[in-house]
Amino acid sequence: MEGVRPLEENVGNAPRPRFERNKLLLVASVVQALGLLLCLTYVCQHSHAPEVSLQYPPIENIMTQLQILTSHECEEDSFILPLQKRDGTMEVQNNSVVIQCDGFYLLSLKGYFSQEVSISLHYRKGEEPFPILKKTKFANSNVVLKLGYKDKVYLNVTTDSASCKQLSVNAGELIVILQNPGGYCAP
Amino acid sequence: MEGVRPLEENVGNAPRPRFERNKLLLVASVVQALGLLLCLTYVCQHSHAPEVSLQYPPIENIMTQLQILTSHECEEDSFILPLQKRDGTMEVQNNSVVIQCDGFYLLSLKGYFSQEVSISLHYRKGEEPFPILKKTKFANSNVVLKLGYKDKVYLNVTTDSASCKQLSVNAGELIVILQNPGGYCAP
Amino acid sequence: MEGVRPLEENVGNAPRPRFERNKLLLVASVVQALGLLLCLTYVCQHSHAPEVSLQYPPIENIMTQLQILTSHECEEDSFILPLQKRDGTMEVQNNSVVIQCDGFYLLSLKGYFSQEVSISLHYRKGEEPFPILKKTKFANSNVVLKLGYKDKVYLNVTTDSASCKQLSVNAGELIVILQNPGGYCAP
Repeated sequence: MEGVRPLEENVGNAPRPRFERNKLLLVASVVQALGLLLCLTYVCQHSHAPEVSLQYPPIENIMTQLQILTSHECEEDSFILPLQKRDGTMEVQNNSVVIQCDGFYLLSLKGYFSQEVSISLHYRKGEEPFPILKKTKFANSNVVLKLGYKDKVYLNVTTDSASCKQLSVNAGELIVILQNPGGYCAP
Repeated sequence: MEGVRPLEENVGNAPRPRFERNKLLLVASVVQALGLLLCLTYVCQHSHAPEVSLQYPPIENIMTQLQILTSHECEEDSFILPLQKRDGTMEVQNNSVVIQCDGFYLLSLKGYFSQEVSISLHYRKGEEPFPILKKTKFANSNVVLKLGYKDKVYLNVTTDSASCKQLSVNAGELIVILQNPGGYCAP
Repeated sequence: MEGVRPLEENVGNAPRPRFERNKLLLVASVVQALGLLLCLTYVCQHSHAPEVSLQYPPIENIMTQLQILTSHECEEDSFILPLQKRDGTMEVQNNSVVIQCDGFYLLSLKGYFSQEVSISLHYRKGEEPFPILKKTKFANSNVVLKLGYKDKVYLNVTTDSASCKQLSVNAGELIVILQNPGGYCAP
């Protein structure tokens, strides 16, 4: 009965395929285990992910302070009011608020001028400026305008009597806030 | 020692359960592999899912242009100003802006009228209209109102002197924007 | 050939490690199966999760009604207008709207007063109040202010002629709405 060997011996001389098969099974189990590990890691990460509390992407806004011209800058009775950024996500370039996103904007102009002024709000080449202030010393004027990428908002001041040298403004602010975020924004 | 057979032979005549068990194991492994495949596909899909950048659902808004009555439409000194939709997510029906969502709305009326006008803003049956403009030719008037589903916003114009035939408006706009989205919206 | 036993017998007396190995394999498979079950449950839950439709977290807002002083409360020509909350997410304390979140706010004051009044809007100790209304009976005045946590908005009324006892207001409302949510909010 030579052909019958104890199990181990059988295995030892088992025909190659069964050894291959066991090796294959081992590899398959290892792969399965790794795959499972990957899944479990993902599940753990995401099941403990903090409940995503909806945070607003910042809404386009800016607060600028109205500056007064230094004497050498102001020559006539009509000039562009210098703006300086105080707060917000938007930017000021060459005394203009740069519009990056399309949409409706609420613009609020406030301030106490030392003399009666008229202010027109410019925002687009070829478009009539908007007369946001008419012959007044105290400004609290709001306007809603449809603006878009490439528009630039700046203020042109006209003073009747004396030239701009005598003009000063106290607590002068221009605030610009996008009202309907979600439109096109330049990258 | 007739009862002892080489391994293969043993397997061949192995009692039925072991064959069943192996078949069962095979099925179990296949099911496990498929399950794992499903998980891995899900993990791959979602781990490469683009970082969800929070996008705003569109905010209720509309821009309408103020039209002028054709002569046969205007008979007296007080009439409803025709509105035409220019932009936005809301709608105009019968010269009225239809309100679908509850909330606070910012309404902005702008324009240059050919004669002094007074404009009252109507929005709900039985409610006093709001006097948004009083005897003026230039309009830049804003108001915040609490509106709700079924309200309809329209403008009633009153002209003192001549009747509506002589009235014209330039760059006339009514813009309506929801200020606190998230309230009830009609389906 | 005493050493050779039928397979089952071999197994019975198999050296301890093979029995351990099978037990180990069994445990591993069970663990794998459980892990897989966990993954599949997670996948099922999340693949059927309703498409999260982006909802707006509520925007800070409030509508208050302007009340009139009872005779014993009003002594001089300048007093604080009592406010009563009508709607919104913010609160009124001691006739003041309490600001919890930093940001730009649109404040809208409306109403018909029985006599000419001037109203100044106070919001921060040491800060000049804002003259939101000047000698008028009809109010529809809006202002955009940058407010922050700990600010408190209240209205101070000045009447010229008679004292506050004769003053009444109809449809008087102060609405306050945050324009750029996403800033710091007190817990």
